[in-house]
Amino acid sequence: MATVSEGSILIGQKPVMNYVLATVIQFNQGARRVSLKARGRAISKAVDAAEIVRTRFLQGQVDISSIKIGSEKVGESGKERLVSTIEIVLERK
Amino acid sequence: MATVSEGSILIGQKPVMNYVLATVIQFNQGARRVSLKARGRAISKAVDAAEIVRTRFLQGQVDISSIKIGSEKVGESGKERLVSTIEIVLERK
Repeated sequence: MATVSEGSILIGQKPVMNYVLATVIQFNQGARRVSLKARGRAISKAVDAAEIVRTRFLQGQVDISSIKIGSEKVGESGKERLVSTIEIVLERK
Repeated sequence: MATVSEGSILIGQKPVMNYVLATVIQFNQGARRVSLKARGRAISKAVDAAEIVRTRFLQGQVDISSIKIGSEKVGESGKERLVSTIEIVLERK
């Protein structure tokens, strides 16, 4: 079986620690990079999760390798609106 | 008088459009770069403001030149806690 070296976590409405632990687990299972993705109000939580992993759980072991923001259309046609998105990639040093 | 070529906007609790307009005004007054800074829950709003400026008000005229996240200590000593921060720099093309 191939080693999974890229992980991905979608940040939603659960408590931030759920996503912190999911990220740490992916690194411990051998991921070299884990990307945290969020939309709308969950964006702040994605930043919190990345910072908690980087400064506490895996201090000195991971870096932020990239941060991208963008916009996505959501809703039915006619009622579409834009929501902001973020993708934070953490990478093992 | 020297031209102000760097602007800075601190995102707080006002409606997002206030910060969008403040950003557009700084560009129209000659800023080449405007940085949007936010902490905690205002982080999502900073991303919204940057995306609205980039995709609607100054479409094709500005790019995101950098995004940084970090942590800051807040509160009195003994009761300190970390809050996440973001700095999004928009730059005229």
